[in-house]
Amino acid sequence: GYGRTGVQYYENTAADDADGLNESQIISRLRMNIDASTSTDQGIDFGARFRMQWDQNSGSRGRQAELNAGVIYITASGLTVSIGNVGNAYDDLSVVFGSELGSYDTSVGAVNGNIFAYNTGPYGSLTEASQNRSGVAAKYEIADFTVRASYIDPDQSGLDEFGAGEANEEEYALSVAYTWNDRLDLEAAYVTNGAGFEDNDIWYVGGRYAVMDNANVGVTYVSTDDYLNGTTDIEGGDTILLFGDYTLADGMTNIEAFVGNNNADGNETDNAFGVGVNYDLGGARLGASLQRDYDERVYADMGVRFDF
Amino acid sequence: GYGRTGVQYYENTAADDADGLNESQIISRLRMNIDASTSTDQGIDFGARFRMQWDQNSGSRGRQAELNAGVIYITASGLTVSIGNVGNAYDDLSVVFGSELGSYDTSVGAVNGNIFAYNTGPYGSLTEASQNRSGVAAKYEIADFTVRASYIDPDQSGLDEFGAGEANEEEYALSVAYTWNDRLDLEAAYVTNGAGFEDNDIWYVGGRYAVMDNANVGVTYVSTDDYLNGTTDIEGGDTILLFGDYTLADGMTNIEAFVGNNNADGNETDNAFGVGVNYDLGGARLGASLQRDYDERVYADMGVRFDF
Amino acid sequence: GYGRTGVQYYENTAADDADGLNESQIISRLRMNIDASTSTDQGIDFGARFRMQWDQNSGSRGRQAELNAGVIYITASGLTVSIGNVGNAYDDLSVVFGSELGSYDTSVGAVNGNIFAYNTGPYGSLTEASQNRSGVAAKYEIADFTVRASYIDPDQSGLDEFGAGEANEEEYALSVAYTWNDRLDLEAAYVTNGAGFEDNDIWYVGGRYAVMDNANVGVTYVSTDDYLNGTTDIEGGDTILLFGDYTLADGMTNIEAFVGNNNADGNETDNAFGVGVNYDLGGARLGASLQRDYDERVYADMGVRFDF
Repeated sequence: GYGRTGVQYYENTAADDADGLNESQIISRLRMNIDASTSTDQGIDFGARFRMQWDQNSGSRGRQAELNAGVIYITASGLTVSIGNVGNAYDDLSVVFGSELGSYDTSVGAVNGNIFAYNTGPYGSLTEASQNRSGVAAKYEIADFTVRASYIDPDQSGLDEFGAGEANEEEYALSVAYTWNDRLDLEAAYVTNGAGFEDNDIWYVGGRYAVMDNANVGVTYVSTDDYLNGTTDIEGGDTILLFGDYTLADGMTNIEAFVGNNNADGNETDNAFGVGVNYDLGGARLGASLQRDYDERVYADMGVRFDF
Repeated sequence: GYGRTGVQYYENTAADDADGLNESQIISRLRMNIDASTSTDQGIDFGARFRMQWDQNSGSRGRQAELNAGVIYITASGLTVSIGNVGNAYDDLSVVFGSELGSYDTSVGAVNGNIFAYNTGPYGSLTEASQNRSGVAAKYEIADFTVRASYIDPDQSGLDEFGAGEANEEEYALSVAYTWNDRLDLEAAYVTNGAGFEDNDIWYVGGRYAVMDNANVGVTYVSTDDYLNGTTDIEGGDTILLFGDYTLADGMTNIEAFVGNNNADGNETDNAFGVGVNYDLGGARLGASLQRDYDERVYADMGVRFDF
Repeated sequence: GYGRTGVQYYENTAADDADGLNESQIISRLRMNIDASTSTDQGIDFGARFRMQWDQNSGSRGRQAELNAGVIYITASGLTVSIGNVGNAYDDLSVVFGSELGSYDTSVGAVNGNIFAYNTGPYGSLTEASQNRSGVAAKYEIADFTVRASYIDPDQSGLDEFGAGEANEEEYALSVAYTWNDRLDLEAAYVTNGAGFEDNDIWYVGGRYAVMDNANVGVTYVSTDDYLNGTTDIEGGDTILLFGDYTLADGMTNIEAFVGNNNADGNETDNAFGVGVNYDLGGARLGASLQRDYDERVYADMGVRFDF
């Protein structure tokens, strides 16, 4: 797990100002993963995980740490099958998060779409019956390829009737990742019925290349379809992000930046950008970032994160 | 603790069909016991336990793992006294569960009655004040005998007034277990005011014998009294179960079966039966079972369980 | 953490008698602290804690163990900064609790005032938005002095509007502790806006001296101001406590006692007193106490506590 704390600033909207929202707040997180595993004589590995997490100011994990639903996995010969609170094949990729900056690993430029990811904290109360959510995921590693597939059903019981436009559907996701020579990462993914919403389909391709030992550049392209949430039309648009990072000669200071373009109709601007820096303390890191989003709101953070 | 997952099938009633309930569902559990203990210079052992458990589809533990109320125990000279969320003297026996089959350890033939057992997850909200539940249990081991007694009060404060027919009473349970030569297990138990309900008395006797090194047979008899839950008359009836298991020459495949008779008036049939199989993977086991209950509904499961 | 259990007796008021409250009840606690930490190459320590606790009969932690909000701390060169669910500079002192007796460490004579302490269990639901509570505390140790300061804001978001007389304010606390030669402890503290209530200011001074190797005497003085909680006037008054303890020649039996005076108007009597005893089992201790409070109600307890 890890702990992190620091200060986040997010420029208010006019509505936020009217509410008296403080733009700068202390935002902390404490995450502990609780793992258990065993191996059989035949070389099959069985494992399981709970997560215990507190998030300052979170509506669901702010008053206390919460446990989440468990996940059980079985690994043999490069194939891992997970059951329960599984990760999404698209969300488990890494280059797709390449534009994230600072100690909070935040990118206001990334518009990755609405999906069922591995759930930190209780399953959402989209219905009272969300205890019937069920997921199965598979990951297969062969040579330099990793293929992932996931299936998440918001209600396997068949008892829950959600209204029109609600999360009634079963989500499917598929992804492929390829690594060449530790220098090049290529990824692609497709999600249909993301987060259980009909028509919420997501396409993604991305790549990252180590141009030097201490410098990387990358690009991601995410295309999201419009869909109805209840009677509201949700439009994420298509997003292209360019990003890179460079480690200074001290070997500890890493400078990073991104520039993004998103074509959703509701945008104030179609361009977002950000710069960040991380300083490695050995076991912990200091970080900061300065970003501007598609609503032309400024975001900035500064903090520290340590892993244990 | 342990993890288990797989598929359970339970034949629908007509009402279930009308609701659209899926007969086959993925059912998983992840249990972690959190233990702490210490010993004094005089040889007294003090210990305590919490349990953290997630159960797929459970109404109370389905959306996330839940912690339960703690139990504290003190052991000296063969006597163990437990305080808090204690086990029931009857429920802590083992032969009474001898008819359970497969990786889910399920028997649709066993009708063991309604009691306050060791509580996984929060105490039930039978009243808002269920935090005042209090239990004390004792276990004494001498030679081949184990004597257990338990006392569980649903409200030690005296403040909670439940209606007529509600769980107002203090539950008492007593049991004796005897083991002869590692081949024969005999058990008997008595519970009065089970789960706090007046007149909910349970009698039990059971035995299991290892007829060969790789084969066991057993029999249990449970007699439950009728009682009122609110204004509803609850009838469990009397149940007799015959069961046995046989390990194949490979030493890893265990075949098991039971046949049961229950005389409750509401039964569709008075006979239930089931067959099961477990295959030992060394640290984990595969299992399956096929059973028919007193409503003539078919139950089947197939899954895997691993302990850690 | 630790476990403790036993019986507490508290003489009923007339209203308690009318409600049928039992005066003697089994009261147990099971506490487990979950710590994580790491150190950087520069010698900075990062750490974090969750607490998991069950309290028999507690309204908030009685039905099951609850997790609390996390705290993250950073230590370097004698300075520790904590963020999140931090301790209060006054509450983190030790002599102020010197009058506590028995295995339950209880003193009915101590009137320490209403503050935001380190929170076991979820933040109170004083508002729905209590997830926005935020704290920062610092501790600095130099030679024989320890200086502490804490700042706790019940709502850092600025969004929550509480009514007049509610916990709207930011609490500040400051304390100094001095130890001389391992024989003398001196402490002083000041809190303003305790627990977020305007005008709830607390002054404290205390000291404890080891008159012999096996005997201590101490005195504390706490002055609390009147304040409004909603429209109710809260008066804690000023309290002076004298206390001492003496270890018998067996080295295991510790006798302790206190006498206290409090000048609040609502008191039945201005004097409280108590005697207690603890017997060290090595890793556990048996304890008992007999006390009388400012309402002239008798309190008694007997129990066992073990640390792990």
